[in-house]
Amino acid sequence: MKHISLLGATGSIGTQTLDIINEHPQEFKLVAIAAGKNIELTRKIIRDFSPELVSVAERSIANELKVEFPHVLFSYGEEGLTEVAVYHKANILVNAVSGSIGLVPTLEAIKEKKSIAIANKETLVTAGHLVMEEAKRNQVSLLPVDSEHSAIFQALQGENQKNIERLILTASGGSFRDRTREELSNVTVEDALNHPNWSMGAKITIDSATMMNKGLEVIEAHWLFSIDYDRIDVLLHKESIIHSMVEFHDSSIIAQLGTPDMRVPIQYALTYSDRFKFPSAKRLKLEEIGKLHFRQMDLERFRCLKLSYEAGKAGGTMPTVLNAANEAAVAAFLDGKATFLQIEDLIERALSKHQTISNPSLADIREVDLDTRKYVHSLLKI
Amino acid sequence: MKHISLLGATGSIGTQTLDIINEHPQEFKLVAIAAGKNIELTRKIIRDFSPELVSVAERSIANELKVEFPHVLFSYGEEGLTEVAVYHKANILVNAVSGSIGLVPTLEAIKEKKSIAIANKETLVTAGHLVMEEAKRNQVSLLPVDSEHSAIFQALQGENQKNIERLILTASGGSFRDRTREELSNVTVEDALNHPNWSMGAKITIDSATMMNKGLEVIEAHWLFSIDYDRIDVLLHKESIIHSMVEFHDSSIIAQLGTPDMRVPIQYALTYSDRFKFPSAKRLKLEEIGKLHFRQMDLERFRCLKLSYEAGKAGGTMPTVLNAANEAAVAAFLDGKATFLQIEDLIERALSKHQTISNPSLADIREVDLDTRKYVHSLLKI
Repeated sequence: MKHISLLGATGSIGTQTLDIINEHPQEFKLVAIAAGKNIELTRKIIRDFSPELVSVAERSIANELKVEFPHVLFSYGEEGLTEVAVYHKANILVNAVSGSIGLVPTLEAIKEKKSIAIANKETLVTAGHLVMEEAKRNQVSLLPVDSEHSAIFQALQGENQKNIERLILTASGGSFRDRTREELSNVTVEDALNHPNWSMGAKITIDSATMMNKGLEVIEAHWLFSIDYDRIDVLLHKESIIHSMVEFHDSSIIAQLGTPDMRVPIQYALTYSDRFKFPSAKRLKLEEIGKLHFRQMDLERFRCLKLSYEAGKAGGTMPTVLNAANEAAVAAFLDGKATFLQIEDLIERALSKHQTISNPSLADIREVDLDTRKYVHSLLKI
Repeated sequence: MKHISLLGATGSIGTQTLDIINEHPQEFKLVAIAAGKNIELTRKIIRDFSPELVSVAERSIANELKVEFPHVLFSYGEEGLTEVAVYHKANILVNAVSGSIGLVPTLEAIKEKKSIAIANKETLVTAGHLVMEEAKRNQVSLLPVDSEHSAIFQALQGENQKNIERLILTASGGSFRDRTREELSNVTVEDALNHPNWSMGAKITIDSATMMNKGLEVIEAHWLFSIDYDRIDVLLHKESIIHSMVEFHDSSIIAQLGTPDMRVPIQYALTYSDRFKFPSAKRLKLEEIGKLHFRQMDLERFRCLKLSYEAGKAGGTMPTVLNAANEAAVAAFLDGKATFLQIEDLIERALSKHQTISNPSLADIREVDLDTRKYVHSLLKI
């Protein structure tokens, strides 16, 4: 039986992870969770799954819940996040928080030799070299949960790394796929949150609309699969049916396909290297879909993707800046304090201003992350 | 270094196999070939590759070549085919003949523990149980060369047989995909030989036009991958880009894609479980193709496919009859002695008349094969 600790339990990936755990009570047990401020849902999860350790955003919430559930251990804040990640009874960590806040808990869990099912791409973007080094040192598996990286991971089973020609990440194009740049100037938060294929959290949905999500995925793929940026391509594929592909040097391409349903890659990460049945998943019937469409990605139209490739290739702390500026800018947009097109401008300004630090330490990364957020706030006067 | 014996050296798969051998002189050596009546091309192959043993269709051709190449061993006819298949210096047999004539050489090569790269699907259709039993007994690998089966074989790497939900064989639809049954009554041999995607031998091209090729592939897949017929589906996909797929029971589908080029699966079979580079293969660019199309297969429109499923499910000698009747009928069509739509009628009549023999021996199969051909000839009065 796998004992699971789950960061981001009340989010979109978190609740879908709970669905999977619920489906396989003989196989999975939830032992620890970290949630945020959604006290109602946290309460329900405690009742349904009886985790032993629960961390929440703030001390007051922890104290309130402690009264209701006296047999549960409670913690809170960033320290609580790490306590859940390293909880001694867990052997696998599902990291489903959003943002670089997931970095330290991930590193600590790796040191405790827990397998990491990683949905928190910002952790790999901001400090991929530290995470991969630590994983290698501790012989820990990083199991991708993102549908694209899960697809690549599945396509690579039974294959040899040396035979990879390139990775092809597919991109639906997000909420604004068919709009011109001019039409983007006045889009609202509500418009941006309306993703055509996937139901996800707010941050990743905005990232999909700016195409930053794909940029973060490119950097994530670089680290997870040890592939140079010039061998990672992005292909527009509006149906989100082919989740991603690997081209080998004999010209063969292996792809993973399915209806868009995050529970499938989540379950795969939890059951790897086996596959469990999934009766409630909607089966893909290509004869009903009829057509799959593909289009070249336009890096001028989607500047955030271009900036991501540039930051990734520059290396050092540049991806840290990219990610922190994006997190700050997206939060400001969601908060009504920045326009949609300002997001990419803010990121570009933060990157231009930054002098990269090679092979940064964790302390360097945390400092650069903080400085970048401050800089973005200063530009927005918040 | 792999030492290769090649049956059907002058055919379409044969010459493409030679291309692959030629590209990798450090890895592959051709030691024995069986050709038919194409003496010019046989001569060229002997000059270019210096095989030690050469078998041809007839004694007279063998004698003629013997004078020109005194250092080469020659043989002929069915016995020659088997001598090449079991040639002691070969460790892999590429069986690229067309028709059930490939059966005995395959069985004999398996007994000699040679790996079998199998492009000769009729062998598995006519006597799949004998071939698979012998392969199991001798712990011999059967490496599929057909693009569809190679795709499935690739999709299954690193996967567990118990997790397979179904196999999805794709079908281009052949030369007459878009014609109604009425429009098929007067089609000529030339029309039928004009396949939209693949350049192949005459027999398989006609089989593609009748959809019998896909029927034979369904039976081949049943044997190669030990899957029941009701878990093998056929999907119309006119571009022949997705070469086939495997759906697993978690709903994930793994597919293999590429531009249609038989050299890719041939090379994969020869290099398995590695992949070699293939600089001359045309790389697939989905952004250039733009759309992939899928359509449900119509079993009434393509009766040969329906008959294949029925014969496969009936088992015993029924697939032997299906294959022998098809071989005789296609030969008659190519010879101007039967119309296109007569092909399926002849097969259906042969199947209706036959009383199946369960678990047939090799002798049973040879007898049924011969009787079926005679019966088809009698119906055509040839």
